Amino acid sequence: MTAIKLDGREVSEAVRNRLASAISDLDFVPALHFVRVGENPASVSYVRSKERLAASLGVASHVHVLPADASQAAVMNTVQHLNTEADVDGILVQLPLPDHLDSAPVLQAIDPAKDVDGLHPINVGRLWAGQDGLFPCTPLGLIAILKYYDIAIESKNVVIVGRSNLVGKPAAALFLREHATVTVAHSRTMDLAGLCQQADILVSAVGSPAMITPDVVKAGAAVLDVGLTRVNGAIQGDVHPDVWDKAGYLTPMPGGTGRMTTAMLMENTYRAALGRRRSALASFAS
Amino acid sequence: MTAIKLDGREVSEAVRNRLASAISDLDFVPALHFVRVGENPASVSYVRSKERLAASLGVASHVHVLPADASQAAVMNTVQHLNTEADVDGILVQLPLPDHLDSAPVLQAIDPAKDVDGLHPINVGRLWAGQDGLFPCTPLGLIAILKYYDIAIESKNVVIVGRSNLVGKPAAALFLREHATVTVAHSRTMDLAGLCQQADILVSAVGSPAMITPDVVKAGAAVLDVGLTRVNGAIQGDVHPDVWDKAGYLTPMPGGTGRMTTAMLMENTYRAALGRRRSALASFAS
Repeated sequence: MTAIKLDGREVSEAVRNRLASAISDLDFVPALHFVRVGENPASVSYVRSKERLAASLGVASHVHVLPADASQAAVMNTVQHLNTEADVDGILVQLPLPDHLDSAPVLQAIDPAKDVDGLHPINVGRLWAGQDGLFPCTPLGLIAILKYYDIAIESKNVVIVGRSNLVGKPAAALFLREHATVTVAHSRTMDLAGLCQQADILVSAVGSPAMITPDVVKAGAAVLDVGLTRVNGAIQGDVHPDVWDKAGYLTPMPGGTGRMTTAMLMENTYRAALGRRRSALASFAS
Repeated sequence: MTAIKLDGREVSEAVRNRLASAISDLDFVPALHFVRVGENPASVSYVRSKERLAASLGVASHVHVLPADASQAAVMNTVQHLNTEADVDGILVQLPLPDHLDSAPVLQAIDPAKDVDGLHPINVGRLWAGQDGLFPCTPLGLIAILKYYDIAIESKNVVIVGRSNLVGKPAAALFLREHATVTVAHSRTMDLAGLCQQADILVSAVGSPAMITPDVVKAGAAVLDVGLTRVNGAIQGDVHPDVWDKAGYLTPMPGGTGRMTTAMLMENTYRAALGRRRSALASFAS
């Protein structure tokens, strides 16, 4: 038995095509602004690839580069300035920030309506309270990929390994909203294997290469690999390749969940732009 | 085998004694303000008992009563006025509101620093982001009762039945913060029995009398009953009385988790008062 590939390239292309079409129908150009501090090569490369994707969809982008020794105040001021600019729809502060900076106050300084990474506490609160808001991109991508392949979520046992603010916890919220039974496991979980074996949908977001071996996967389960480790220059996921013979569905690495993350970032930018400009219109009309 | 009683009366008394002592050491009187709309007898009685508890601890309280047909704007205005009053430390809007009112915007109108019920989205976000904030009272009470009885939480399997904004979801966040492995189950969960049987700590917050029967409880587990149903004038919990012979620890009903909720409300009021007045002092000094 070989698992069906949950092809992030294919799903993200579908999302991108839908978005490009919706964006071309707008009477304005959505604008996404990046804040990058220093020249961390991975950050430079991530921002560049997001910019390229934005351009291909008709989203304007701009990168605000601060020196590696920028002060906390300088980063905050940059964000606050972008908050006030009427034609800035989305603000993304590329993480990680240099060690001398505290990211929490920076993320909280972002106008929640422009918070396309969905990390502002008020967006986190809206996510858990069942309200509308901007939510983290990687978890949104997991739901989108499952829906694209018509994999049922409601009433399924979803086990999420990893409890980060970026993936594990917001994924739990989104799966609960889809009426799954959700378990969050982590480094202090006892009998992780026994837990994973009960998962209809298994999400691994740990960053420990090949830790999800076939023996811990339920036959036929959908397995979503969010772990990402660079080993001697090659990218490795959390899921062992032998899981292809046990799972029913599996995301490849690369070409799986990571592809979805950037697509959902563009969807968040589109949604932020619509939300902001419509409410500006509404307040203009009133 | 008979379960050890997790005595909410005893634990809440310990919390109250600690609070009364801490409050008597303050050089100000914390003030808790209630907003009650209409004369729903349960609401009248809840507010009255919280007022009585506040008085016994040295907390000043005041009830703002609006007529049952009060407009949304009138309720919002009341909250906004209390936000601006320097000597109001905590604001509690007694739920449920009459049917013609929308509670979400009312709760979001409360200054997060005065949000002693912990239901403002920004406090929900802080809870999930691992930050300080004001968090919902009933889940806080569950953690407090377990700690009082030295019941280990870290690495334990916690199953929470019910996913309300008031109990289930915030309880999941607090148990995750304590490093438990957390599962949230609900009405659409398949094989609820099998899931509950794996719980070292089982929280039931459904409101379905005696639904938690001994066969679904792991021998020796700690069972926390948050369900509350009035049957012919008597209060019944979610947990069947026969669970006393199977569980290791069990909260009685009444005298269990409900007692903790009001105690934690007073703790939130104390914390809100300290936080506000200290930051006022800090800004005065700067």
